[in-house]
Amino acid sequence: LLTDFGLKDSYVAEIKAVLLSRAPNVSIVDITHQVPKFSIRTGAFLLASAAPYFPDGTVHVAVVDPGVGSKRRAIAIQGKRFRFVGPDNGVLIPAARMDGPIRVHEIQNPKFMRETVSTTFHGRDVFAVTTALLAGGELVEAVGRSISDQVEPPYSSPRKVGNRVECEVVHADDFGNVITSVHGKDLAAWGIHAGNDIVVSIGRRRVGVPFLSTFSEVRKGGLVAMVGSHDFLEISVNQGDAARRLRLKPGARLVLEM
Amino acid sequence: LLTDFGLKDSYVAEIKAVLLSRAPNVSIVDITHQVPKFSIRTGAFLLASAAPYFPDGTVHVAVVDPGVGSKRRAIAIQGKRFRFVGPDNGVLIPAARMDGPIRVHEIQNPKFMRETVSTTFHGRDVFAVTTALLAGGELVEAVGRSISDQVEPPYSSPRKVGNRVECEVVHADDFGNVITSVHGKDLAAWGIHAGNDIVVSIGRRRVGVPFLSTFSEVRKGGLVAMVGSHDFLEISVNQGDAARRLRLKPGARLVLEM
Amino acid sequence: LLTDFGLKDSYVAEIKAVLLSRAPNVSIVDITHQVPKFSIRTGAFLLASAAPYFPDGTVHVAVVDPGVGSKRRAIAIQGKRFRFVGPDNGVLIPAARMDGPIRVHEIQNPKFMRETVSTTFHGRDVFAVTTALLAGGELVEAVGRSISDQVEPPYSSPRKVGNRVECEVVHADDFGNVITSVHGKDLAAWGIHAGNDIVVSIGRRRVGVPFLSTFSEVRKGGLVAMVGSHDFLEISVNQGDAARRLRLKPGARLVLEM
Repeated sequence: LLTDFGLKDSYVAEIKAVLLSRAPNVSIVDITHQVPKFSIRTGAFLLASAAPYFPDGTVHVAVVDPGVGSKRRAIAIQGKRFRFVGPDNGVLIPAARMDGPIRVHEIQNPKFMRETVSTTFHGRDVFAVTTALLAGGELVEAVGRSISDQVEPPYSSPRKVGNRVECEVVHADDFGNVITSVHGKDLAAWGIHAGNDIVVSIGRRRVGVPFLSTFSEVRKGGLVAMVGSHDFLEISVNQGDAARRLRLKPGARLVLEM
Repeated sequence: LLTDFGLKDSYVAEIKAVLLSRAPNVSIVDITHQVPKFSIRTGAFLLASAAPYFPDGTVHVAVVDPGVGSKRRAIAIQGKRFRFVGPDNGVLIPAARMDGPIRVHEIQNPKFMRETVSTTFHGRDVFAVTTALLAGGELVEAVGRSISDQVEPPYSSPRKVGNRVECEVVHADDFGNVITSVHGKDLAAWGIHAGNDIVVSIGRRRVGVPFLSTFSEVRKGGLVAMVGSHDFLEISVNQGDAARRLRLKPGARLVLEM
Repeated sequence: LLTDFGLKDSYVAEIKAVLLSRAPNVSIVDITHQVPKFSIRTGAFLLASAAPYFPDGTVHVAVVDPGVGSKRRAIAIQGKRFRFVGPDNGVLIPAARMDGPIRVHEIQNPKFMRETVSTTFHGRDVFAVTTALLAGGELVEAVGRSISDQVEPPYSSPRKVGNRVECEVVHADDFGNVITSVHGKDLAAWGIHAGNDIVVSIGRRRVGVPFLSTFSEVRKGGLVAMVGSHDFLEISVNQGDAARRLRLKPGARLVLEM
């Protein structure tokens, strides 16, 4: 369960209460509820980061839903190991695609909703009910018609031109690590390995950063680029905050020279 | 489980540990632990918001307890579907009253407490033990004598005079939605329906707000009044923060002209 | 489960996902994930505060791990009622010592790790797997060789010289209570009981504080010293924030005159 609801209110508990009312034996794991409000980009990244570690059969629910109450569709997705439930705005797609070929269905069948559906809280009134029924054995096909024009997430892929890689910041974590859109496996394919230096260009600023394999190879407070635990290239400060130091936020454009 | 303990400390975990030691099979759901410190008003609102969605038989525990260590009583309440455990300061009452006629008992029986009861932490030493035993089948009657002079919560009911409704702010949620003390069903009874405009007076300021049925009928950044997912009239900004815009906090007095 | 990961990211969920993948029936309780980044001192205090309340057989996991990726060892500890899993940096030791004589083993056996171990996230790749296997019946002895030179935590014991006690601040909780390193049982052994006044010296400042047995004996906003719910001497403000008032942070040195 991943939302942008924060932890001050009763909303997350209401989703869980509806889930447990209809599927008493499910075990619920919070991914986070502190996705920046309405940030489909961050929600999609965090869901895709955590999803693969869960047991087979897990139903992943993501409620980052700026379009609730409008005509945006509600969807359920069948992947290979997992199912996914949430709004049709791209937040589910990166995690679902990592789980192999996907089948997407629009949630239309009233059986998969509460009797009264509010215009502001589909997390409780639609997604919790759908999740409980899927966890209880219902098929994704039963929620409604198959669709193939689902909304894609707002990511751009990194582009390599000569020795320059144009990419973006996908997340700045609570430690201040800056996670870029460049995969470690792409760097390896391009012949770029730990031990080289990288020059990071942020607008007109240029910062040299050593590309290493662990924090502890740099002194406390030193900048370092590493392939992090999700196989993305990250820029970090050993025991410090790289996002603050470099003034980088999700969505910022970077050029890396290798 | 709802408290004002925050998430930085070990207090919430101690309550859960005592609960699980004495009732290993209970499933514990956090409502929130970020009730503003000592705010019985906000705690009572959030408990009443979430409680109805839980499965029958749930024991609800609320620890917002500025009077711990004084003579304030500890109580357990039997409602129709639920039981409630916490301090006798009003925090349990709105949720319990929504659950039909209530029977209130003072927790006096030492069996429902830890062997040593601290003066500062009845959440762990009294309420967790009582909850575990109630979840395990003990009756509310067993905790101690019946009382009928329980403390009521610090709410005032909205008053309608002509076309003006005097009410108050009961909560400002993490999205900045301002939840008023006016029920949607009262508005309907008064013949006031979505489609009208409302003028909100806050002290000497007067702000016109369209009364609609969903966020997406206003442009991004626009003010809107809606009946929210708990049947209270809320004042919101589409993808923005109405509490900050209008400088409204829980307890603030409002006059609505319809 | 206690970490300094915060609640914004997917890291805590990844640990839980790995745990549940390998031990589907465990019940996971969060102590806190908001230990100040890299603060072994605070992590050790909070773990020791909460651990004793848990059911026998609990496996406690603490991931406050500034040395991840360096040569710091990973350890598992067998106590009397509990087992403990985490980095060898002192964070586990106070909780483990409270649980009777301990046996410490280094985690070396690859069976107790994921197939691929990242250099930055042993919480997921080592500690979660070890915890799942211990919860499933594996012995602490199986994780690797016995060691006796484990790293001790960075605490100093309070020193009593005449009527002066030199101590330090071990934690400032979310209410602003300042928890000192002085145990209530030591105060009792020294013949110091509630009812006396204490003079607290912070650098050159001297503040008189009544030593009482409950908050409610002082007016709202008044300073008070009490033996708190974990048997440490605490300095508090009734319904206020003593840490802010006295400008005290974890690690600050205090002299108490009794």
